[in-house]
Amino acid sequence: MTVAVIGAGISGLTVGKMLTDYGVPYTCFESSDRIGGNWAFGNPNGHSSAYRSLHIDTSKERLSFRDFPMPEHYPDFPHHSQIKDYLESYAEAFDLKRAIEFENGVAHARRLEGGGWEILDQAGATRSFDHLVVANGHHWDPRFADFPGEFSGVSIHSHHYIDPKDPLDFSGQRILVVGLGNSAADIAVELSSKSLQTQVTLSTRSGAWIVPKYVYGRPSDTMYRTTPYLPLSWQRKVMQLAQPMNGSNSALYGLREPNHKFFEAHPTQSVELPLRLGSGDIAPKPNVSRLDGSTVHFEDGTSDDFDVIVYATGYNITFPFFDRDFLHAPDNRLPLYKRIYQPGMDDLSFVGFAQSTPTLFPFVESQARLVAAHLIGEYALPSIPEMERVIKADEAKYIGHVLKTPRHTQQVDYFIYEEDIRAREIPAGRERARAAKASA
Amino acid sequence: MTVAVIGAGISGLTVGKMLTDYGVPYTCFESSDRIGGNWAFGNPNGHSSAYRSLHIDTSKERLSFRDFPMPEHYPDFPHHSQIKDYLESYAEAFDLKRAIEFENGVAHARRLEGGGWEILDQAGATRSFDHLVVANGHHWDPRFADFPGEFSGVSIHSHHYIDPKDPLDFSGQRILVVGLGNSAADIAVELSSKSLQTQVTLSTRSGAWIVPKYVYGRPSDTMYRTTPYLPLSWQRKVMQLAQPMNGSNSALYGLREPNHKFFEAHPTQSVELPLRLGSGDIAPKPNVSRLDGSTVHFEDGTSDDFDVIVYATGYNITFPFFDRDFLHAPDNRLPLYKRIYQPGMDDLSFVGFAQSTPTLFPFVESQARLVAAHLIGEYALPSIPEMERVIKADEAKYIGHVLKTPRHTQQVDYFIYEEDIRAREIPAGRERARAAKASA
Repeated sequence: MTVAVIGAGISGLTVGKMLTDYGVPYTCFESSDRIGGNWAFGNPNGHSSAYRSLHIDTSKERLSFRDFPMPEHYPDFPHHSQIKDYLESYAEAFDLKRAIEFENGVAHARRLEGGGWEILDQAGATRSFDHLVVANGHHWDPRFADFPGEFSGVSIHSHHYIDPKDPLDFSGQRILVVGLGNSAADIAVELSSKSLQTQVTLSTRSGAWIVPKYVYGRPSDTMYRTTPYLPLSWQRKVMQLAQPMNGSNSALYGLREPNHKFFEAHPTQSVELPLRLGSGDIAPKPNVSRLDGSTVHFEDGTSDDFDVIVYATGYNITFPFFDRDFLHAPDNRLPLYKRIYQPGMDDLSFVGFAQSTPTLFPFVESQARLVAAHLIGEYALPSIPEMERVIKADEAKYIGHVLKTPRHTQQVDYFIYEEDIRAREIPAGRERARAAKASA
Repeated sequence: MTVAVIGAGISGLTVGKMLTDYGVPYTCFESSDRIGGNWAFGNPNGHSSAYRSLHIDTSKERLSFRDFPMPEHYPDFPHHSQIKDYLESYAEAFDLKRAIEFENGVAHARRLEGGGWEILDQAGATRSFDHLVVANGHHWDPRFADFPGEFSGVSIHSHHYIDPKDPLDFSGQRILVVGLGNSAADIAVELSSKSLQTQVTLSTRSGAWIVPKYVYGRPSDTMYRTTPYLPLSWQRKVMQLAQPMNGSNSALYGLREPNHKFFEAHPTQSVELPLRLGSGDIAPKPNVSRLDGSTVHFEDGTSDDFDVIVYATGYNITFPFFDRDFLHAPDNRLPLYKRIYQPGMDDLSFVGFAQSTPTLFPFVESQARLVAAHLIGEYALPSIPEMERVIKADEAKYIGHVLKTPRHTQQVDYFIYEEDIRAREIPAGRERARAAKASA
């Protein structure tokens, strides 16, 4: 069994570690000269979206790999440089770099008739593998808002934002930030510092629930805990009752109303954004209706002039190594069995394609554990109709209650997911694998 | 009756407005060319402590003069420039500038035998007045911490801090901020911005309770309400029970424990400070034990090297126009009857000498109302022994429960104070005035 892994970011490294544990040989293709992907600030392959001030929005207690705790001395919310160092020490501890081909990404991946893969690497070699693990991430291909008209000033995406001097000197500029995710909040706050003498406006299509990083003096995500033993809809109700203590509606600060209830979708984490809006340092606006030279028109009929627009409007899920006809994710829709398998292709696994609340690293560990069990024959997939049924049921559970926007296609609840994989899916897959062996 | 008012900041303007209402002529001496005092950012007389990013820590609803509401369009927490504009429109609405002598402060004030004042103005003229109102503020004379040893880097006081480039370029510097009041929190947060590539350490002698500006999406001070009909100590107990929802202990973020219970003293308002400490962007340290060249030693035995020390260690209460023998405030102790009158000197009033929770402007209005009633003979002071008894009783009420530090000498609870002045002290003083007239 030969395995190719695309990417040496969090997902690729975690899969690599798990495959090493299970004794499965693999080759990891990494287009950059370093590990870390999104968390390698200034990554020469252009795939990091980290800005200089970025701190992870998950507390270290929640974020740690279950089998590799973060250093004691780390702060509650580590800086991107600390996440990178942590991934370096993870790679070191489990000798993961040995299997990585650096500066050699996958240019093209073709699935052969009857299974197996032909891979063209960036060095120009053609390589064959039995199984392909796609771990190229979903935070590197900027998604822009498509507004009518033309803007004559500078437009950048948050992906390219580094700090108030890079990629351009924002001092004294009239800046429009579009979006209301964590990047939009962080960037609008940073650029509205009075010391820059800027004018910052924040325009959002829809509202959001805004939650602080600390509640009662503790990282707020340490208080988030769902259980598989009660319907998720009931648990959301409880969180909605506790909302006034734990989060606030963006409409309180002049932004739009959220189009969903509290904790039905990933909230925006920021303690500073409400304060800056409430201090008049950031002006709230509804969605953009039209661009016209330096003027931006908004849906409430107002307009203003700007020098720069920062689009913090999220990312596309993109697989540049697949032919588009073979597989792509229109509007970020990528229905997968347990967020890993495409029905009918059991030689292809996706890892890390989810927006997991409240934590990502242990979620990826959970996925990697299932993938490794599959690759050593200790897990078998169910029938295609059964996979399709479960995909629909899981989508109903995780995202059935939210609007169908590109932001919410991949939402999962970590605690529910983890328990499902560990206590139900892996044992069931083991039974299926044994039954298949017995009947063969 | 001729009245001199020293200072055209909040207190001087409010007194001026009230004297105009009551038809008492007065002269206001202002050393600057403008009104606003502390709130005139960049005040040429050097008496403004405002930094470029300063927003008031009281919400506009709480802050407004009772008889002159803030403009509807103001944000919840106005910027210093908006406070200044508001004071300008207040002065305009009540024609207050007419009575102000700009660029003509009081160089010396001498109380005459038997009462009345001889004033030497900065222009060199000697002037006579029946009554003197001291409204020169208590946030302009920097108080430094007195650490043993010598520091070879740059030392500045927060009073002189403007922004990360002024009075020096802080980029790339190793910065120690000393203190844990609002200025210390704001400045440490601003200077620890990753875009400046600084290293920021915060050293505090004692801890504090840290409260956010918003709770449940509303300005938190709008939820603070004490009543004169229950003992203040009981009301503090209730707030202490609600503390986990409304504030957090600085020790949670690596700083010292507060030396008082929640709401026994003015809390520090910052949503950003806990976050920056918890993100490792600001390093917490206990008090400084010794300075030695570029090295600063701390009380926990650790030490570090620094380029700059910012002393955000508060202000002295200073009256440069009085002979020190006549009147001064050692360690900021200035015991006054109702925070206004020095027993035995009924031709001298102090206005604005308090740390009033949760709001200052209506507190000053309340004081000005009593002063004006006094000046038109509608209010008489009690006997000297009675004044001394009340001063002690009021101190026991407002500050009896806190440590005797220069930071806490002037604490009052606005709601209790306002009700005391309006419903008890002014009517009682009117009775005294009538009784005196009847017996004369």
